[in-house]
Amino acid sequence: MCALDHRGSLQKMLKGVLDREPTYQDMVDFKLDICRTLSSESSAILLDPLFGAAQSIASGLLAGSSGLVVSLEETGYAGDAEGRISRELSDWGAAKIRRMGADGAKLLLYYRPGVDVAPRQLDLVRKLAADCAAQDLAFVVEPVGYPLGDEASTGGYAAIKPDIVIQTARDISPLGIDVLKAEFPADVKVEKDENKMFEFCKRLDEASQAPWIILSAGVDFSWFQREVEIACKAGASGFLAGRALWQEATTMKTRAERVEFFSTTVVQRLRLISALANAYGTPWYKKTAAPSVVEGWYASY
Amino acid sequence: MCALDHRGSLQKMLKGVLDREPTYQDMVDFKLDICRTLSSESSAILLDPLFGAAQSIASGLLAGSSGLVVSLEETGYAGDAEGRISRELSDWGAAKIRRMGADGAKLLLYYRPGVDVAPRQLDLVRKLAADCAAQDLAFVVEPVGYPLGDEASTGGYAAIKPDIVIQTARDISPLGIDVLKAEFPADVKVEKDENKMFEFCKRLDEASQAPWIILSAGVDFSWFQREVEIACKAGASGFLAGRALWQEATTMKTRAERVEFFSTTVVQRLRLISALANAYGTPWYKKTAAPSVVEGWYASY
Repeated sequence: MCALDHRGSLQKMLKGVLDREPTYQDMVDFKLDICRTLSSESSAILLDPLFGAAQSIASGLLAGSSGLVVSLEETGYAGDAEGRISRELSDWGAAKIRRMGADGAKLLLYYRPGVDVAPRQLDLVRKLAADCAAQDLAFVVEPVGYPLGDEASTGGYAAIKPDIVIQTARDISPLGIDVLKAEFPADVKVEKDENKMFEFCKRLDEASQAPWIILSAGVDFSWFQREVEIACKAGASGFLAGRALWQEATTMKTRAERVEFFSTTVVQRLRLISALANAYGTPWYKKTAAPSVVEGWYASY
Repeated sequence: MCALDHRGSLQKMLKGVLDREPTYQDMVDFKLDICRTLSSESSAILLDPLFGAAQSIASGLLAGSSGLVVSLEETGYAGDAEGRISRELSDWGAAKIRRMGADGAKLLLYYRPGVDVAPRQLDLVRKLAADCAAQDLAFVVEPVGYPLGDEASTGGYAAIKPDIVIQTARDISPLGIDVLKAEFPADVKVEKDENKMFEFCKRLDEASQAPWIILSAGVDFSWFQREVEIACKAGASGFLAGRALWQEATTMKTRAERVEFFSTTVVQRLRLISALANAYGTPWYKKTAAPSVVEGWYASY
């Protein structure tokens, strides 16, 4: 699956290359160029409602074979940096995501186990899980951890990251979600032992009651490729890859150069990690009950 | 597009070959065998809620590239043969069709312009068009005409069929429908002049305010192929083909024989008429306004 719901980070990157604030159309064009070149290679594309979701459908550039997952949240967070509170995007939600013909909804959730706002964040997951169930939409939750105090500068956060990611899976996966989009449970800038990474992923697999996939968080592609292989061998069902696939495009000066890059290098990257996921990943239906259809199902549906 | 929503006719045909009433599973198996072999070749599959729609999804046999259209109506009609009244299937409707992830809804509508029940039938179209619009579902209407008095036995119906099909398009296409699934506007058992057929199709094209496609109504495939070509040259946007593609399968004794037939002869037939539609058909967006997406669309959607 490809992630294309970035807003803040993409705006910042495009501003750098354009030397001005990106317009609405700059943002849409970037996302549509990826849809045009990558959606036929992806099981699904994740898009935001502002710049991508409806635009991808109306443009005809979203491949018919690609699922569509649309994000639910407002970008950023409320609260303070040590107690981050995720918010739903206003005037949006599961009912509109279903109505527009999408297949799933995704929530990016800032989450640090044990902090004061953690129960409130879990309540949001429960509420949106119910909204998605009412619409029969697949619900993908992407928890993103964060450091407290001086953990970021001292390296303390890297040391506890595996435990945070694993505890987060334990807290969130039983709440009625369909897919956990997990961070890789190690900081690959610090942890270089792949056996340890595999062990962390095994613990994550045991902790998650839902099928899980890994996110890319903008690491270099060569690292992400290793992460996909390790995670899938440990029980992951694939990946939801964003900037790791295409981040170099945000330094390219022309749209033509960017499209060329998407349709060559990025397609090759996507095929490579898709092959790893297909070879080593656990099918989602081995982690969750497949739906059963009985005679007369439609009347009580 | 392939039509697979038959119920009465399929039950009757299967009964003949099985020498017993077909079971629920017999019906499901027949439809799933077609999904397995034809959905990757079709822009969409039309299925009924009883035996096909959810079953095709849960089985994993519906190709990801295929759209799914689900029928709304109860089979058959109320009223009498000269004043046929279509009914919605109980405990079903546009909201459930949207919720299950389908792309469109279809209504088979018995319709004879000018009869007493005609206004009531048009009211049903208006009501279901509103239901589908509320769900942003494509609404396909399939009007099927019928004879009065001795028109069937005297050949009178064949003589007026072009006028009936054309007037029906004029009556129904302005009522908020997205696709008109029209009968071929001539009885090909009687009318042999292809120039006349083309003229009838041109008049149908002028009469229809919505994109239109033709249905197959179980004519021989060789005839249906001619109908698709003539209709598409006259302005049709394609076909929704049912029994004309696969009717011989209902006389085959074994499931293996049937699957072999679907995956060879029927696939070839579908590719042939798809090539005709692609070569000669009018894209739907030339007959109707494509949706436009403006900045901030999601808030007012």
